Amino acid sequence: MRFTYLGPEGTFSEQALRTIPDAEHAELIPARSVSEALDAVRVHQADGAMVPLENSVGGSVPDTMAELAMGEPLLITREVIIPVNFVLAIRPGIRADQIRVVAAHPQAAAQCRNWLRAHLPQATVVDMLSNATAAAAVAHGKYDAAVSSRLAVQRHDLPVLAENIADQSGAMTRFVLMCRPGPPPPPTGNDLTSLAVFIAHDRVGALLEVLTQLAVRGINLTRIASQPTGEQLGRYCFLLDCNGHVAEARMGEALMGLRRICAAVRFLGSYPRAREDKPVRPPTGTSDADFADAATWLAKLRESGTAD
Amino acid sequence: MRFTYLGPEGTFSEQALRTIPDAEHAELIPARSVSEALDAVRVHQADGAMVPLENSVGGSVPDTMAELAMGEPLLITREVIIPVNFVLAIRPGIRADQIRVVAAHPQAAAQCRNWLRAHLPQATVVDMLSNATAAAAVAHGKYDAAVSSRLAVQRHDLPVLAENIADQSGAMTRFVLMCRPGPPPPPTGNDLTSLAVFIAHDRVGALLEVLTQLAVRGINLTRIASQPTGEQLGRYCFLLDCNGHVAEARMGEALMGLRRICAAVRFLGSYPRAREDKPVRPPTGTSDADFADAATWLAKLRESGTAD
Amino acid sequence: MRFTYLGPEGTFSEQALRTIPDAEHAELIPARSVSEALDAVRVHQADGAMVPLENSVGGSVPDTMAELAMGEPLLITREVIIPVNFVLAIRPGIRADQIRVVAAHPQAAAQCRNWLRAHLPQATVVDMLSNATAAAAVAHGKYDAAVSSRLAVQRHDLPVLAENIADQSGAMTRFVLMCRPGPPPPPTGNDLTSLAVFIAHDRVGALLEVLTQLAVRGINLTRIASQPTGEQLGRYCFLLDCNGHVAEARMGEALMGLRRICAAVRFLGSYPRAREDKPVRPPTGTSDADFADAATWLAKLRESGTAD
Amino acid sequence: MRFTYLGPEGTFSEQALRTIPDAEHAELIPARSVSEALDAVRVHQADGAMVPLENSVGGSVPDTMAELAMGEPLLITREVIIPVNFVLAIRPGIRADQIRVVAAHPQAAAQCRNWLRAHLPQATVVDMLSNATAAAAVAHGKYDAAVSSRLAVQRHDLPVLAENIADQSGAMTRFVLMCRPGPPPPPTGNDLTSLAVFIAHDRVGALLEVLTQLAVRGINLTRIASQPTGEQLGRYCFLLDCNGHVAEARMGEALMGLRRICAAVRFLGSYPRAREDKPVRPPTGTSDADFADAATWLAKLRESGTAD
Repeated sequence: MRFTYLGPEGTFSEQALRTIPDAEHAELIPARSVSEALDAVRVHQADGAMVPLENSVGGSVPDTMAELAMGEPLLITREVIIPVNFVLAIRPGIRADQIRVVAAHPQAAAQCRNWLRAHLPQATVVDMLSNATAAAAVAHGKYDAAVSSRLAVQRHDLPVLAENIADQSGAMTRFVLMCRPGPPPPPTGNDLTSLAVFIAHDRVGALLEVLTQLAVRGINLTRIASQPTGEQLGRYCFLLDCNGHVAEARMGEALMGLRRICAAVRFLGSYPRAREDKPVRPPTGTSDADFADAATWLAKLRESGTAD
Repeated sequence: MRFTYLGPEGTFSEQALRTIPDAEHAELIPARSVSEALDAVRVHQADGAMVPLENSVGGSVPDTMAELAMGEPLLITREVIIPVNFVLAIRPGIRADQIRVVAAHPQAAAQCRNWLRAHLPQATVVDMLSNATAAAAVAHGKYDAAVSSRLAVQRHDLPVLAENIADQSGAMTRFVLMCRPGPPPPPTGNDLTSLAVFIAHDRVGALLEVLTQLAVRGINLTRIASQPTGEQLGRYCFLLDCNGHVAEARMGEALMGLRRICAAVRFLGSYPRAREDKPVRPPTGTSDADFADAATWLAKLRESGTAD
Repeated sequence: MRFTYLGPEGTFSEQALRTIPDAEHAELIPARSVSEALDAVRVHQADGAMVPLENSVGGSVPDTMAELAMGEPLLITREVIIPVNFVLAIRPGIRADQIRVVAAHPQAAAQCRNWLRAHLPQATVVDMLSNATAAAAVAHGKYDAAVSSRLAVQRHDLPVLAENIADQSGAMTRFVLMCRPGPPPPPTGNDLTSLAVFIAHDRVGALLEVLTQLAVRGINLTRIASQPTGEQLGRYCFLLDCNGHVAEARMGEALMGLRRICAAVRFLGSYPRAREDKPVRPPTGTSDADFADAATWLAKLRESGTAD
Repeated sequence: MRFTYLGPEGTFSEQALRTIPDAEHAELIPARSVSEALDAVRVHQADGAMVPLENSVGGSVPDTMAELAMGEPLLITREVIIPVNFVLAIRPGIRADQIRVVAAHPQAAAQCRNWLRAHLPQATVVDMLSNATAAAAVAHGKYDAAVSSRLAVQRHDLPVLAENIADQSGAMTRFVLMCRPGPPPPPTGNDLTSLAVFIAHDRVGALLEVLTQLAVRGINLTRIASQPTGEQLGRYCFLLDCNGHVAEARMGEALMGLRRICAAVRFLGSYPRAREDKPVRPPTGTSDADFADAATWLAKLRESGTAD
């Protein structure tokens, strides 16, 4: 098997990919961008691509969001959540007060902003494509220091000036493994379903309606993020993560409800939740057994006017 | 065929029953009460019973409501709406100022209250079981006058002191034909479905939830009436009339939704609307075709992860 | 002070009236009908009228409902809930198997239906204006037996054939004391507010909107009953009982919300709950203190753009 | 007066700032980042800062979003929407097929992705801090070409290889002018109000509740964007843009409702809508006059039990 990931080597994406069993004996190929990683899957050069979706501090990853909403369809088959932490790697021999330019990915810089202001007030930050690139640039002598991951810094054998420099400790990044469309993995009882929902703009209160369609079937929303459709300001689609699996009755009915009221609904996958906390119990009356009981009852009513 | 109706002969119920084609060559049997009429159907002594359900002025008919909510199940297979009007019939030879006691069904008296106060201020009203009974009692010399229907007054050959004495003109009564459970009549595109819904009392905002279950599927409610369950004050069931037919997809899904969240749902029938006004169009996205499209889409998602 | 009640003497209404302290030294006047009782208040012949509103078995009392919805406005200032029980009083000397005609108020007959069928299968029931009238009629030798209250039977010194003959034990009736409009009694922390709400018929889903207006302010609905407006079939107003007092902030905001979206809202009074169970706690964020805090916050925002 | 903007000189932010009358005779100071621009306002070095908030193709600007949600409070006092278009500027003398490295801001690169793939398949894209920086870097001979704005390219006197290279024409960026807290500008009848809403995480369906609080007061939502709170994955605050002004009654009541149910609500300003399309009419019953009428009515009820 072959997998791509958002490269270069040493990124958190590589780290996320290495946590999954299938990756152990597979070929892992770094991609220069999220789109390049996903395109490799689309053209069958890879079986899956591991890309970052959101970070607990920096929020959504725009490229991945845009691909989910508008790119040629792929399915999420797995999520991986890993703690992200940052170190300040430096050019060998340089002192803190000599650092003039720090290389960093914008999200990394944003998450270490206060630390950088406090400890390197004289330095300016240069945006880099990735944490790994930042480390490489320092290794090549291009910049004085890099905000990077321990993995990348180790690969380039750089000295570390400070560890855990993120302003907020405990930051996590959520990655998704995206594959070509196929049967979703079977339900585990603790799954997520991701959707891109394009609301009909001639319906007042359309988002409220979308949430009501979900709530009425006992579907809990764990994330909602808006993404522009590109048409004009004020037109968004919504990327939703919901507790439950497309194979479950309540999710199926909710999806059909959305399909009927929305301009478009794009199914992005049902897959096991990575978080180990307890699964969210569906509300009373929304289990598959409850749906089956109600369907039997309705069938009897339609046939004989009574279910007794 | 044999039909019962709320008697005695000459009631508006008889008049309602005579409007249906099946009644033309059938045996029509008056019953002394709504329950007696319905019991005749239950024990196969009649094929259907015509009973009043509500009046545009007097409201719900308590006996019929209680039977729908709690009686041994029967199905509404037809509704009939007829204008009700009242005349004041008198004992032959009596003058208006001599009238001391007026016989009237309580609903009839209520609907003519202002007229009675204005024209017969000296008279007291005696409650009677029916409009027809009131006329009969006057015919038998028991009372001075009767608020009654023209049909009943004609049968007893009583003089009429005044016509159209209802305070509000244009009053209508809605009757229902109730039969033993069986396959509902086929959908006509302009049907009503009646339900008795028993809400779960440990759910906060349960009625709001019931209405939301209907609204989400585009089901319009034309009537909601509460009926005590008899257990204790504050416990009600709700009798609902909804636009649509149990055979329609949106109604089916709504019924299953109610079944899942309510303590109990009793199906009371799907039958053609009697009113000749235009049928209420289901909202965009709630036709049978919309439901079928969504079901096909969902099936594809479940099978292959994509519907493209 | 003078009070009227739904008479004649010996009714449950009299019994309800006698439970209130003000009635102890007041003049109590029976009225022949709910309307007569209320009219006495309207024309200042009485200071209040005690009338039945609903029964846990028989449901709403139509005359009282009609007066609340459409009569010249009065306010509920107090509710009284008393257990109602029925006895079968008989003509002295008669045996059970000789009883041919039983006098009963229709609600009383309805509540004892099964008992009557089982024990007096040969008897027919004659509708009476009240339980007390039924007893009086038997005392006057007009009928063989009466379904009545113990109080009324004692007054007429009739023998009792059977006690507690209601099919469902524990039935309760809720009475309301109605007075001319004036400042509502002060909040007690466990009050009810009654309303008649006339929905705007050109608004789709108007009832759902009404319930949402209440729910959003944390107002719990303890009763909803529909009442025809008399205009035509399908036009109803809704009589609502809500937890809370008009003087409370959340109730005030909810009332203003209803006022804005409804065709009309009629305030029917705020008064202490009679039931001794625990008061319903308003949801988090809906206390008067929460409203006051929010109002202070908003005032600061409007004045200075910040509340810090 | 002094204003800052997201620099360097030649950015769309500068262009947006120059559209406002106050900027004509003011000192305009480029800042190196959104945060630096806002900090200048916070420490009274500038009276306002013009920063980008969202783009119709690229979506939210993360730095601005983070500042609105979590930074030291400032208020939006004005929005400016301008079309953004991109040109490809090149090093003098270079041919298209010789271009190896293209400098571009990530959002600019994302918006021209297809054009770049089609016309410069051999080139890699280097992330730059801004469109203006990209042009400057090419002017300094650092890169072969730049995706940039016409304004920036003119300042550096670079040849333009292609104009209007965005994949989607008609892209717009929305900028906001942020000032220190103070009285909001007066209502114009066509205003927006921006909020950051932190939902209470122990409330199920909290977002649905938030939307319902708005909908019940007739407040229309024009934008909702989620922003991580930084605490942990799955914790978001929501940045809302609503039609209406904090001085208006319906907005005031909605804000108080949010204040009561949310963990925190941050008011971000009420300001005139920039778009010239027709203002959204508040639904029937939600004008200031409707609120005033309802308040008068309630005051009468509380005082005298009636509003007649």
